[in-house]
Amino acid sequence: MAKFEPPLYLDNAATTPLSPAALEVMRPYLQERFGNPSSLYRLGRQAKKAIEEARATIARALGVLPQEIYFTSGGTEADNWALRGIIERTILERGPNFWAPQGGAVLLTSQIEHHAVLRCAQYLERFFNLPVSYLPVDREGRVQPETLQAELGPNATLVSIMTANNELGCLQPIPQLAQRAHQAGAYFHTDAVQAVGHLDLQIPQLGVDLLSASAHKFQGPKGIGFLYLRQGIEIEPLLHGGAQERNLRAGTENVAAIVGMARALEESLRHLQQRNLHLQRLEDELLRLLREKGVPFKLNSHPPKLPGVLNLSFPNCEGETIQQRLNLQGIAVATGSACDSHDFQISHVIKALKLQREYALGAVRIAF
Amino acid sequence: MAKFEPPLYLDNAATTPLSPAALEVMRPYLQERFGNPSSLYRLGRQAKKAIEEARATIARALGVLPQEIYFTSGGTEADNWALRGIIERTILERGPNFWAPQGGAVLLTSQIEHHAVLRCAQYLERFFNLPVSYLPVDREGRVQPETLQAELGPNATLVSIMTANNELGCLQPIPQLAQRAHQAGAYFHTDAVQAVGHLDLQIPQLGVDLLSASAHKFQGPKGIGFLYLRQGIEIEPLLHGGAQERNLRAGTENVAAIVGMARALEESLRHLQQRNLHLQRLEDELLRLLREKGVPFKLNSHPPKLPGVLNLSFPNCEGETIQQRLNLQGIAVATGSACDSHDFQISHVIKALKLQREYALGAVRIAF
Repeated sequence: MAKFEPPLYLDNAATTPLSPAALEVMRPYLQERFGNPSSLYRLGRQAKKAIEEARATIARALGVLPQEIYFTSGGTEADNWALRGIIERTILERGPNFWAPQGGAVLLTSQIEHHAVLRCAQYLERFFNLPVSYLPVDREGRVQPETLQAELGPNATLVSIMTANNELGCLQPIPQLAQRAHQAGAYFHTDAVQAVGHLDLQIPQLGVDLLSASAHKFQGPKGIGFLYLRQGIEIEPLLHGGAQERNLRAGTENVAAIVGMARALEESLRHLQQRNLHLQRLEDELLRLLREKGVPFKLNSHPPKLPGVLNLSFPNCEGETIQQRLNLQGIAVATGSACDSHDFQISHVIKALKLQREYALGAVRIAF
Repeated sequence: MAKFEPPLYLDNAATTPLSPAALEVMRPYLQERFGNPSSLYRLGRQAKKAIEEARATIARALGVLPQEIYFTSGGTEADNWALRGIIERTILERGPNFWAPQGGAVLLTSQIEHHAVLRCAQYLERFFNLPVSYLPVDREGRVQPETLQAELGPNATLVSIMTANNELGCLQPIPQLAQRAHQAGAYFHTDAVQAVGHLDLQIPQLGVDLLSASAHKFQGPKGIGFLYLRQGIEIEPLLHGGAQERNLRAGTENVAAIVGMARALEESLRHLQQRNLHLQRLEDELLRLLREKGVPFKLNSHPPKLPGVLNLSFPNCEGETIQQRLNLQGIAVATGSACDSHDFQISHVIKALKLQREYALGAVRIAF
C-alpha cells in the first residue's frame, strides 16, 4: 500500500480530521464496551452512562440542558428532522392545508442555506404544497432582519436560517432574526453545522429554539451530530421505532461516536481563542501575498465571519480549474460546496450574491 | 478506572462486539484518510473509492448490484426510509387519499415487526390516515402466506415483513410472502436486521424489493446500516440535502463505519456454517441441561429459526426478575427486546403469540 502523503489541506469547512483525543475516548466503545445502551445489564448501563455524560458535556458547552440535546446521524438528519418535525406536528395539530385561509409562508428560510435545509424545504413545498419563502441575502450574504420581518405573516410557523454559511463563512444576525420570528409567533431553527466548535456559541444568547450540529466539522467523527430542541417544544420524530432519545429519535445509539463528538467539542472550544487568532493571521497573510503579487481577486467573505474561511473570486478563471491545478500541487480547496462538486455549476450561494458572471465562475473557498 | 470484566454475554441479538478485523480496516479512515468523499481532490477520492469498494463487497455477498445498496445510519433509518419512501412516492404519483375509492390496506405488515417498522407504520396511519393492516402470526410466530393473501386488496402498495424476528428468532416464509405481494401488484420490503450476517441470504432468492440491515448485529460498528433497493424502483428520500448515495440519501458518508460494515459482513459470512453448527450445539446443550434439572419451561422459538437465538418461557416467573438475577451472576440476557426494556410489559411479540399469561410474563431471550 502506498504511503499516505498529507496534502496541504485547506478544506476544513468540508470535513476535519478526527482529533486524536476524541479517537482515544472512542476506543473502548469500539472494543470491549460494546453494550446496547437500552440493555439493563452492566454492559448496557455502562454505554448508557457514557452517552449521558457526553450529552451533559455538549449541553454545558452550549449553555443548555442535557435533555435538550438529541443525538442524530449528523447535520443533515438534524436539519431534516427540525423542519419536518415542526411542520408535521403543526399539520397534526391544525390540519392539512391549515395555511390555506390566510396568506403568507409557513416556512421561511434563506436562499443560501445548506442543501440539507433547502432541499428539505423544497420537498415539503412539493409534497404538502407548503408555502415556503426563500429569503434573499444582501451583497455580503446576510439576511437582513427587515427582509425576514416583511415576510412574516399569520401562517409563519418556522424560520430556518443558518448561523454561518458553509461557502462564504459569513455569519447571520441570528439573535435579531430569532427575535423577529418569535414576535410573529414562529419557531426559529438554525443550521449551526459550520459554527459549532468554531465560535463560542451560547444558545440562550442566540435565542433559537432548534439548532443543528455535526461532529465531523469540529474534529469529531463522521456519522454523528445533534439537534438542540428547546424544552417544551413538541415535534414529531423523523425516525420512529425504539424508545431511544426520550422517544424522539429511534435507533441503537452510536455510542463511540457520541463520546468522541463530546470530547472533540470540548477540545475544540478549549483552544478556540488561540486557534482563531492563528487562523486570522493565516488569512491576513494569504490576502497580503495575493495583493503583493498583483493577483486580481474579489473577497466574498465579509466580517462578521467564521475565522479561517475565505471565499475569493478570481475574475475570468474557473473555480474548477483553480481547484484542479492546486490539487496537482497537493493543495486541497473547494469550489461551490463539497456536496455540490459533482455538477460544475455556479453554486446557489454564489448565485444569491448576484456577482457579475466573471467573478461568480471563479469562486474558490479556502478553509484553513 | 476499574478493569473491565466481560460478563457471559448472551444477548448477541441486541448488539454484538465489533470484530477486530473490522476495526482494523476502519482505523485509517478514523485517522489520516479523513477526506470528505464528495471532495474532488485526492483525500476525497480515496474516501469515495473505499465506500464504493465496501458497496461492491456487500452487494456481492447478497447477490445484488452495488448500485442497489444505499448506506444509512442503521436499521431503523433503513426501515423508516423504506416505508415512507414508497408511501410518499405513491402519494405523489396518485394523489393524497388515493386509497379512498377502493377498500383495503395500502401498507401491510405483521404484529411482530420491530418497532422501527411498527411505529413508523402507526405514524403513517395517524398522519396520512393511511389504511394499514397488521397481520397476525400463528403460534410459532409466522405470517402464513394465506393470511397475507386474504388482506391483499386493490390498494395494496407495500408489504413489510421481517426476515427473522428479534425476540423469537423465527424465520418468515419470505419468498412465498413476496410472491403473494407481487401477484397483487405490491412491493415487498423485509427488515432483515436480525438475519443479515447470520444466514446465507441471497436477495434474488428471497425475491424482495427492499431490504434493511444493520451492521452492529453482525459484528460491524454501530451507527451504520443499509437499504437494498431493487434497481428501477423509485422512492422518495427520507434525508434530503447533498447528492450523496445517487441523490437518495443525503449527508456526509460515515466512511470508516461503511468500510467496517463491509468487512464485518464478509467475515461473518465466511465463518457462517462453522459458527452456526457451534451455536446449534450450545442451544442443544442448554435445553438438555434445563430438562435434566427438571426446570419447567416452554420453547417459544421453533425452526426454521436463527441459529443461536432461543426464547424460553418460565411459567410463574417474571422475565424481568430472571434477567436481573442472571445479571448479578454476570450473565447478560434480554426480556422483551432491548429497545423495549424501559417498560416492564409483555412485549408486542410475545403478546402476538397468544401464550397463556403465566408463560407470557416469564419470557427470556438467550442469544448466544
